[in-house]
Amino acid sequence: MMNVIGASVSEATLTSHHETRDIVLPNQTDHVPQVAVDIGGSLAKVVYYTPSASKGGRLHFKIFETERIDDCIDFIAELMISGRALAPNIKQVLQATGGGAHLFYDLLEQRLPGVVVEKDDEMECLTAGLSFFITEIPFEVFTYNELDPTPIQFEETPENIYPYMIVNIGSGVSILKVTGPNQFTRISGTSLGGGTLWGLLSLLTNAGSFDDMLEMSKDGDNRNVDLLVGDIYGTDYSKLGLKSSRIASSFGKVFKKGERQDKGKFESSDIAKSLLYMVSNNIGQIAYLNAQQHDIKRIYFGGCFIRGHPVTMNTLSYAIKFWSKGDMKALFLRHEGHLGATGAFLKHRSLPKPNLSCTFPSRSV
Amino acid sequence: MMNVIGASVSEATLTSHHETRDIVLPNQTDHVPQVAVDIGGSLAKVVYYTPSASKGGRLHFKIFETERIDDCIDFIAELMISGRALAPNIKQVLQATGGGAHLFYDLLEQRLPGVVVEKDDEMECLTAGLSFFITEIPFEVFTYNELDPTPIQFEETPENIYPYMIVNIGSGVSILKVTGPNQFTRISGTSLGGGTLWGLLSLLTNAGSFDDMLEMSKDGDNRNVDLLVGDIYGTDYSKLGLKSSRIASSFGKVFKKGERQDKGKFESSDIAKSLLYMVSNNIGQIAYLNAQQHDIKRIYFGGCFIRGHPVTMNTLSYAIKFWSKGDMKALFLRHEGHLGATGAFLKHRSLPKPNLSCTFPSRSV
Repeated sequence: MMNVIGASVSEATLTSHHETRDIVLPNQTDHVPQVAVDIGGSLAKVVYYTPSASKGGRLHFKIFETERIDDCIDFIAELMISGRALAPNIKQVLQATGGGAHLFYDLLEQRLPGVVVEKDDEMECLTAGLSFFITEIPFEVFTYNELDPTPIQFEETPENIYPYMIVNIGSGVSILKVTGPNQFTRISGTSLGGGTLWGLLSLLTNAGSFDDMLEMSKDGDNRNVDLLVGDIYGTDYSKLGLKSSRIASSFGKVFKKGERQDKGKFESSDIAKSLLYMVSNNIGQIAYLNAQQHDIKRIYFGGCFIRGHPVTMNTLSYAIKFWSKGDMKALFLRHEGHLGATGAFLKHRSLPKPNLSCTFPSRSV
Repeated sequence: MMNVIGASVSEATLTSHHETRDIVLPNQTDHVPQVAVDIGGSLAKVVYYTPSASKGGRLHFKIFETERIDDCIDFIAELMISGRALAPNIKQVLQATGGGAHLFYDLLEQRLPGVVVEKDDEMECLTAGLSFFITEIPFEVFTYNELDPTPIQFEETPENIYPYMIVNIGSGVSILKVTGPNQFTRISGTSLGGGTLWGLLSLLTNAGSFDDMLEMSKDGDNRNVDLLVGDIYGTDYSKLGLKSSRIASSFGKVFKKGERQDKGKFESSDIAKSLLYMVSNNIGQIAYLNAQQHDIKRIYFGGCFIRGHPVTMNTLSYAIKFWSKGDMKALFLRHEGHLGATGAFLKHRSLPKPNLSCTFPSRSV
């Protein structure tokens, strides 16, 4: 079991700006025999621990494409070999969650001889991981508002965190209501998620990676493909409070008789921006409607879709603020993509030993 | 003013299966000096009346593309010329609604000399038109369930129709709550509407018209592009009641590293089916969430997106049934695309005359 007292986000310089920062665990003394993996429809997320030379150690966060599951398993196998060298007599465990824990169970067992593969429920891991980040890690949770001179504002953990909602945006979207430690219900979801954005963008543009697509959208102007209220009315529809700049129809400018022969006239960057707005706005709206139904004010957004991308976070924040008239708050996390894998990692329970440092189970995770 | 007593849907043979059936008005005796047009972001809908040789007359329903607004105005100008021949001394009026009533106001005035162009509020016309069809026209409203041997079941008008919701799916989507005659609020909407489906499909396929696209989707199998729960889990996710056949991520199968170079591998028909499901499911879900929030059980779907298309109606019906656990009902109309234009048509009030047949204003429209 993990000793998470004094845990914090590592502020060491990152080698790549898309890397997820390590979590420093200064009080972990026991050997850590587990690795965790959360295998989703598009991405496999790995969490593992390395002891430091002096005291304690670090949690590391890594991502693979599910299509390249073999690379991911190779990586885990290497970790297991290093771990075995440190503590040859301790049983090694892979805590596996996400759909791929079921789909690839036999493959994992076969490719990791001597390692126990434990399947953990995806939603339990998601909420356990989120709870860990909310309650144990300072400077983890933040709000985002591009109009603010400092768009990222770190959020202090409120005394009473329940109830809250988690909107996990992977290939698809799951929405959970959390009412207490390990008390949750999956209340909704939508099939319009990260997989939709990446899938449509890869059909419509030449982008070859997630980051290419996000980069591409930066210079885009969605007004070249989206139909705005002003395009239909000429002005605001003031009676209903619909501003002329509001998107009336995503991609509503594309299908026009005169232009049907000339698909090339639409820029990839404009298409990328429009799709990003469309998917993010829609998730924000469905999140709001569910929060409203369950009288929840705090909405955490997680999952690999967000990738710390400013436009995405701003769109989600704006949607929540717009629909709830400022009554609800969109919250983001620095380890957004690794909630489930971290939850699985923390679920590990080794056999009881007399000298076990065991602070974790008594906390509200 | 119109005498709508005894109004009914014409059962005369249609010349094209996409034509909207006339409404027979057997008791209309006065000359009808108005034509109505509802100009949306993509389509302009016209409603006009012709007297029959014997008694009464008929309402006709026609659609133009907004891009070809000149054709639409030409058509209206012809109607006005015929009308003037019948009653040279009566002031002719064009009741114009939709965003285009504002955007094209000057053009309409200029191209229709001698005709008064009256702007009518879009939402008022929508609810007035819907109310007319619900309360006055037998065999207009129906439910749809493809599993039923007779998928279309006509709906009897309940004694107390309020409150109800109207989800109008044009280029974008407007959601209105109606609590009484001419008492309504626009409670929500989404930019993922007809314009999104047509726009994305025209970028992704070679379809040249709405009907091409719907036809194309008939043979499609969305499972070739959508990521299902079973693709991620290998089985059902039974703990959450998610069947393996459920769509986890729309287009979630498209963006796979190994296949990125080969966009051609996805069939247009599969893409069309997936997009149709995606947009219809999403509208159904947002409609349900709004109905839930406002405690409404009856949801009417209108707008030109539906076009009497079985897959669309079935998807909307299924979404409402699924999310509400059978507590709510999706209702469709045979004149779905002409609610606003019909409302505008009925708004016409000629100057009071002693011999005026005037049954309409006393009804709940």
